[in-house]
Amino acid sequence: MTDQDWIAVDWGTSNLRAWRMQGSNAVAEASSDQGMGAVAPGRFEAALLALIEGWLEDRPMTVVACGMVGSRQGWHEAPYRAVPCVSGGAMVRVPQTDERIAMHILSGVSQAKPADVMRGEETQIAGLIALEPDFDGVACLPGTHTKWAKISAGELCHFRTAMTGEMFHLLSTGSVLRHSMGEGWDAEAFMDAIGETLSRPERLATALFNLRADGLLHGASGDVARARLSGLLLGAELAALKPYWLGERVDLIGTPGLNAAYMAALSQVGIEAKAHDGTELVLAGLTAAWKAMT
Amino acid sequence: MTDQDWIAVDWGTSNLRAWRMQGSNAVAEASSDQGMGAVAPGRFEAALLALIEGWLEDRPMTVVACGMVGSRQGWHEAPYRAVPCVSGGAMVRVPQTDERIAMHILSGVSQAKPADVMRGEETQIAGLIALEPDFDGVACLPGTHTKWAKISAGELCHFRTAMTGEMFHLLSTGSVLRHSMGEGWDAEAFMDAIGETLSRPERLATALFNLRADGLLHGASGDVARARLSGLLLGAELAALKPYWLGERVDLIGTPGLNAAYMAALSQVGIEAKAHDGTELVLAGLTAAWKAMT
Repeated sequence: MTDQDWIAVDWGTSNLRAWRMQGSNAVAEASSDQGMGAVAPGRFEAALLALIEGWLEDRPMTVVACGMVGSRQGWHEAPYRAVPCVSGGAMVRVPQTDERIAMHILSGVSQAKPADVMRGEETQIAGLIALEPDFDGVACLPGTHTKWAKISAGELCHFRTAMTGEMFHLLSTGSVLRHSMGEGWDAEAFMDAIGETLSRPERLATALFNLRADGLLHGASGDVARARLSGLLLGAELAALKPYWLGERVDLIGTPGLNAAYMAALSQVGIEAKAHDGTELVLAGLTAAWKAMT
Repeated sequence: MTDQDWIAVDWGTSNLRAWRMQGSNAVAEASSDQGMGAVAPGRFEAALLALIEGWLEDRPMTVVACGMVGSRQGWHEAPYRAVPCVSGGAMVRVPQTDERIAMHILSGVSQAKPADVMRGEETQIAGLIALEPDFDGVACLPGTHTKWAKISAGELCHFRTAMTGEMFHLLSTGSVLRHSMGEGWDAEAFMDAIGETLSRPERLATALFNLRADGLLHGASGDVARARLSGLLLGAELAALKPYWLGERVDLIGTPGLNAAYMAALSQVGIEAKAHDGTELVLAGLTAAWKAMT
């Protein structure tokens, strides 16, 4: 074990992922479903050790974690930093019982007005800034709660959250629309639906049940309904976030699938977004935080 | 038993309600949780008999039912009538095995474009028209899926559905916002929130997560969050349904609580809506259908 050995952790609500690092390089990876929401109070250290036990030695190894693990319901609260601020890097040293780790959790970022918060995304944004220190534009991080963040001069200036991913999940699996959903996808229906709510966001309220009725009355396919639901929600999101993309460079940070969907959506407003892999950027952001410590 | 004896049934997705009728008067009432969604195929007659057994005699008694019981997943499909049409009254005679009942189910109403459907509400609208044959205006039937219907010259002309009630349920109990919800209500926050999305419907997309962040950062009360969530959704509904209320007489048909919420919302756009009890009107509509048979 050298001073280049450390452990990077991305600990969200649903998943726990860890990487054995040597400097900037991940040499091993492990993950589990022990997300913040699945771990009982007082059991966080045990959940982490169960995953990384095999990587530990008899000297304390630095662990740097980001995400919901730093929330009030997580292992240890890492207070928010308020915008405008440098994105990522602020951390708290967390007391632990096992002496083979030296635990650190990164702070999330808050915005007083309009009230908004993020935990985890600030580290991906830090990764983007680490790769491109002169980045000036908007980072869009699609997910359950999509974040849109204005970045300039190395700082996170302001941001907003859209619950589009969670809405799609609730409506497609928990509402009457679940009866109309297929497994597949219709790319044209997706693009058309984006245009509808982008130009007339108020139409979302009546367009939803229309998906159900189109299936009942006209035998509209489940693939069309699924793609339209996604497109209607995404078009409404773009309408709400116009100040974030209009005239801006937009970089996407997410999974390949979500990046592709948002890239297609943004192409409708003439924006050619650049896509970054979310895992690569969280690692870059965790590495930047680790480097700043050493 | 006279030819004035019959049974009225309102059989929706979640509930089954029946009334023992003498002409236009309900003389007994019974209900159960055996809504259409809870009854297995082939078990509808048994579910009904379990509720009304005590009212039956040895001659067949007319039963008139409305609601989801007439859907493809219900007891027997009662085909939709397409708008424009007389609301309610169209029915199918349903084969049953027990000779003490003569079973009828009322048709729902469909609209080809924009695709939309209703089952049950057409009977409440028929009740409104039975009470006021010259009604010219809009009926708004708030519920899980709120219906807005234009009525003129005794006909249902066109209608739209907003899933506002279902969205409120999903978001307040199944999304991250559930952590921010109180049990109470803040009437001022409700009215303010309506105004926000009524004038700027695109704001709904970012206003939702804002409720969560306001609680986390500023300790906003759960009662405010709950009322604001309802108001934001209702404001967006009013924005979408503007062609249905602008310059129209609007009558509400629902429960006292929902009627009051919609009445407050409509007062923001200068509309003094008249409220009708949903149960009274479904009985009036079922009675009108029964009278037309006899």
